[in-house]
Amino acid sequence: MSLTVVGSIAFDAVETQFGKRDRLLGGAAVHFSLASSFLAETRVVGPVGDDFGEVEYAVLHNRGVVTDDIEHVPGGKTFFWAGRYERDVNIRHTLQTDLNVFEHFEPKLSEGSRAADVLFLANIQPDLQYAVRQQCNPRFTALDTMNLWIDIARESLLRTIGTVDCLIVNDSEVKDLTDEPNLVRAARAVMELGPRVVVVKQGEYGSAMYTAEGAFGLPAYPTADVVDPTGAGDTFAGGFMGYVAAHADEEISDELLRRAMAYGTALASFNVEAFGTERMQALRADEVTERVSELQRVTVFDASPVPLRT
Amino acid sequence: MSLTVVGSIAFDAVETQFGKRDRLLGGAAVHFSLASSFLAETRVVGPVGDDFGEVEYAVLHNRGVVTDDIEHVPGGKTFFWAGRYERDVNIRHTLQTDLNVFEHFEPKLSEGSRAADVLFLANIQPDLQYAVRQQCNPRFTALDTMNLWIDIARESLLRTIGTVDCLIVNDSEVKDLTDEPNLVRAARAVMELGPRVVVVKQGEYGSAMYTAEGAFGLPAYPTADVVDPTGAGDTFAGGFMGYVAAHADEEISDELLRRAMAYGTALASFNVEAFGTERMQALRADEVTERVSELQRVTVFDASPVPLRT
Repeated sequence: MSLTVVGSIAFDAVETQFGKRDRLLGGAAVHFSLASSFLAETRVVGPVGDDFGEVEYAVLHNRGVVTDDIEHVPGGKTFFWAGRYERDVNIRHTLQTDLNVFEHFEPKLSEGSRAADVLFLANIQPDLQYAVRQQCNPRFTALDTMNLWIDIARESLLRTIGTVDCLIVNDSEVKDLTDEPNLVRAARAVMELGPRVVVVKQGEYGSAMYTAEGAFGLPAYPTADVVDPTGAGDTFAGGFMGYVAAHADEEISDELLRRAMAYGTALASFNVEAFGTERMQALRADEVTERVSELQRVTVFDASPVPLRT
Repeated sequence: MSLTVVGSIAFDAVETQFGKRDRLLGGAAVHFSLASSFLAETRVVGPVGDDFGEVEYAVLHNRGVVTDDIEHVPGGKTFFWAGRYERDVNIRHTLQTDLNVFEHFEPKLSEGSRAADVLFLANIQPDLQYAVRQQCNPRFTALDTMNLWIDIARESLLRTIGTVDCLIVNDSEVKDLTDEPNLVRAARAVMELGPRVVVVKQGEYGSAMYTAEGAFGLPAYPTADVVDPTGAGDTFAGGFMGYVAAHADEEISDELLRRAMAYGTALASFNVEAFGTERMQALRADEVTERVSELQRVTVFDASPVPLRT
């Protein structure tokens, strides 16, 4: 039942066609845990500065997130990211990235965080992800990364990928990582590196999962107004990993992982409906359950055979 | 039960990482009818030149396609297209387009073609599509187009779209047509032009359908070796429209159209497995039925509610 996430805690400045916000609570670990907390008790590991205060802690505590391993760096400033999305939200421009307290971050996990059944290594430098993985012995570990690390820390990243059960990355990332433009082949190449599960996030197109048993495809929930897509991928991962953590007594089968993807997809569809964490803070459990049902209604079809002309 | 398609009949020269072919039977109407013929008797309307001979007719006749309205232009040459796909088959370079007999094509439909229950207007100049539509009174008409017509014949295209029940286009085309980067909004904008069904082809990501009732998403069948993607979209349309034509006694409900998309997707997944029409010529009905079942296995998940933390 226990879930630990290591990753960024941030303030974001975001501009989309729907408006502009100068200071939003953000970061991969925050988006992740606000989603995963609907399914499993979640411990967050990551650094913050003096500017991270009671208001921000309260957002996490209101969802029952355990913040004991959030490391306060005295005199430091919290990680800051500024970005602008075009009217086509698939096009994002990073305007500013200040690592701040993240620059010298060395993850230190408490006994409680180390004991997690399920571990998520959000996108940080792969050697840090490796160090965290070595401190734990989880039943299921997944890792996210980004093109930067594929480009500048490839060997470290490959070593770390070799220690996890599941890779959760974007479409373009898995293709770059494996130098393989075909997704089925790219996923197979990842499995040869170690992971037995490859989850590919495809933005507006949904997501796909590849395992030894085969492939699974899930469309995104259709949303007319994407107010702020920041954190959608981390929210998806939070729902996915939270679902796995919540079913500790079950075998981690493809069938379970498919259900996990549905929860991830449903939760991510809420995250994009407002700026930052606004929508997730207001989200109710019954809305999540209803959207998973809606997602199924969006995907079902009758495959009964029909007479064909030979 | 009767289905008419108006569109290009072509010879293609294609180069992919799997090899090179100088003269393949191709064209939208050909790819379409080889797929639709598994479901409904299909009549092809389009022009050919002296170079279109018994061998090419035989490919269509072997699938029971009615070629009476294939117009032979004496002294003419058949439409020719040459293209090269990169290793990432999503990137296509058109090397040559010779309109040939297509340049002065004016569709003339026989009594049999005009009487079709279901009509598909493959991608040709929109005034020609309009002229065909005016000659018929089908139960269900769908139209494909391309960015060229969106750019240079927009008014003609909009007038023609206003006369059809369904638009079947690529992702980028529907976004360009409506100047709307969000797919849900783009589909709504199309519905305001007339069609009540919008089918969006998304290549490796699958397809989506939008109607007044809501959205449907269907992943592509996962294929590791895309030998030649030429004609995949037309093959999809052939399966989709063929399914509708085969169920003339049923109301054209969302449920029926979803099943139609599954047949389109399954058929398209075969088309890309070999160059040109090679795979479709060898395809057996039982393989189609089996792949539709496989497609469902690739997409199902259990959406049962689970306890959530509030």
